Amino acid sequence: MSLLAVGTVAFDSIETPFEARTEVLGGSATHFAYAARLFGPVELVAVVGSDFPATTLKRFVQLGIGTRGIEVAEGKTFRWSGRYEADWNTRHTLDTQLNVFERFDPKIPAEQRATRFLFLANAQPAVQMRALEQLRAPELVVADTMNLWIDTKLGELEALLGRIHGLVLNEEEARMLTGRRNLFQAGRLLLEKGPRFVILKKGEHGAFLLGREARFALPAYPVEDVVDPTGAGDSFAGGFMGSLAAAGRVDAASLRRAMLYGTVTASFCVEGFGVEGLEPVDRARLERRFQELAALVTP
Amino acid sequence: MSLLAVGTVAFDSIETPFEARTEVLGGSATHFAYAARLFGPVELVAVVGSDFPATTLKRFVQLGIGTRGIEVAEGKTFRWSGRYEADWNTRHTLDTQLNVFERFDPKIPAEQRATRFLFLANAQPAVQMRALEQLRAPELVVADTMNLWIDTKLGELEALLGRIHGLVLNEEEARMLTGRRNLFQAGRLLLEKGPRFVILKKGEHGAFLLGREARFALPAYPVEDVVDPTGAGDSFAGGFMGSLAAAGRVDAASLRRAMLYGTVTASFCVEGFGVEGLEPVDRARLERRFQELAALVTP
Repeated sequence: MSLLAVGTVAFDSIETPFEARTEVLGGSATHFAYAARLFGPVELVAVVGSDFPATTLKRFVQLGIGTRGIEVAEGKTFRWSGRYEADWNTRHTLDTQLNVFERFDPKIPAEQRATRFLFLANAQPAVQMRALEQLRAPELVVADTMNLWIDTKLGELEALLGRIHGLVLNEEEARMLTGRRNLFQAGRLLLEKGPRFVILKKGEHGAFLLGREARFALPAYPVEDVVDPTGAGDSFAGGFMGSLAAAGRVDAASLRRAMLYGTVTASFCVEGFGVEGLEPVDRARLERRFQELAALVTP
Repeated sequence: MSLLAVGTVAFDSIETPFEARTEVLGGSATHFAYAARLFGPVELVAVVGSDFPATTLKRFVQLGIGTRGIEVAEGKTFRWSGRYEADWNTRHTLDTQLNVFERFDPKIPAEQRATRFLFLANAQPAVQMRALEQLRAPELVVADTMNLWIDTKLGELEALLGRIHGLVLNEEEARMLTGRRNLFQAGRLLLEKGPRFVILKKGEHGAFLLGREARFALPAYPVEDVVDPTGAGDSFAGGFMGSLAAAGRVDAASLRRAMLYGTVTASFCVEGFGVEGLEPVDRARLERRFQELAALVTP
């Protein structure tokens, strides 16, 4: 498996209707990696501050998460804090301290430039592009983005869309980026901008894959006790990309399986704070829930 | 096929973000029947006023919708008017004139009392119960309800739940009726009140079947141009019950197929005002969209 993710490693402070926690290990790259490592080794490219515990980096390695691309910079690690409302769908960002991430310039280690599967977690599109350009000939590049970049860096984002194979975004972002309310129309317009497929994330309502060769709609796995939704999207991406990288191919059948695996890893993610839901998962639990989800959705 | 529905036949005035229409043929029984008749004959028990056009009753018969149980009472037909917001999910009721429906006392024609499949569209639970009690030994009774009865007639509704096999309701109603925010917990509590299965309708996000023997989650069919969502739930019920009545059995496989058929008939419904989306559909178009939906959701 040849998989690399570029993104954030962070500490989050999270308030839910039931509990508040501070200094929870998080960040897009972290969530991605904790999901993807269930399928095989995954490499991270990120930056942390000098306050980042060496024990956590060691834990990454134990879990099969490569840390050679994690730069340790003078200063503090990225911190985010947010609060969820009782419906889980409304999230208020209370504070964002970029800290060392503010000057993040991704450097892919030389020995990883032949990586075949690349995930570009949400970041300024120009930063995503700089990471992408360091890879020799990636077979599958999937990127996430956010409303901020659609608002402020649309040109950069459009350029990126011409270089990637897959785009992951939520409903609101798809509408913003295309000006279409109808999601399927929005998805089709996005395909015209470059990607081979678009994944529309709908949170508790599942995800929709719209590709040139395949369309696949999938409800979410029915989680009974949501603890913390933070990182669900990146965990989805981790399961999705991990499954594809392990399979080593990106045909319609692999994409469908990857959608199920992404849904499953996201469901584990939301069952704990930060990566606490994903950390204890092993291959057997992953496969059991995959089979359960497949049974739930197969007509 | 042995299928009967008790509900309303009405005229609706509908405002959408794109168009306004008055005196559109509607009502829960009408929408149900226009979907169910695609699978075989269906009988209606309802009341209309003396203003109801005889030509419309003739049209029902032409379409395979039995009208012997439709009482024509002195007065005006039920009228409803509402407005949809641009997201389609927010509906404002502007006016409700019950008219002859106010004194509706369902009378099942003697020759229809052996009907095997019964749908009780949304009505005061005591009225639904009076209809149910006239049937000899129905094999499958499915009921719809609404927040008003949960608020004002909870005792009657609980009594009804003890007598039916299936309950159709939306997310908000399931939460109101059980006091549980989590839909899967809500669904399980509802099963303890009597029904063998509960269908949680999520509109554009699909539907979830939670039964004693089966769980099945299904996204909505991706309709590109929604014209009028009025009646989508009853059209779902019509396709669902029509498919089961035509199959003549209610096992796990039939329930899954019925969920797909309900999703398909609902998708046709929202493509036109009132029943205009459903009316031109024939068996071939129904089957094509069924196959398309099955391909979209099969892992």
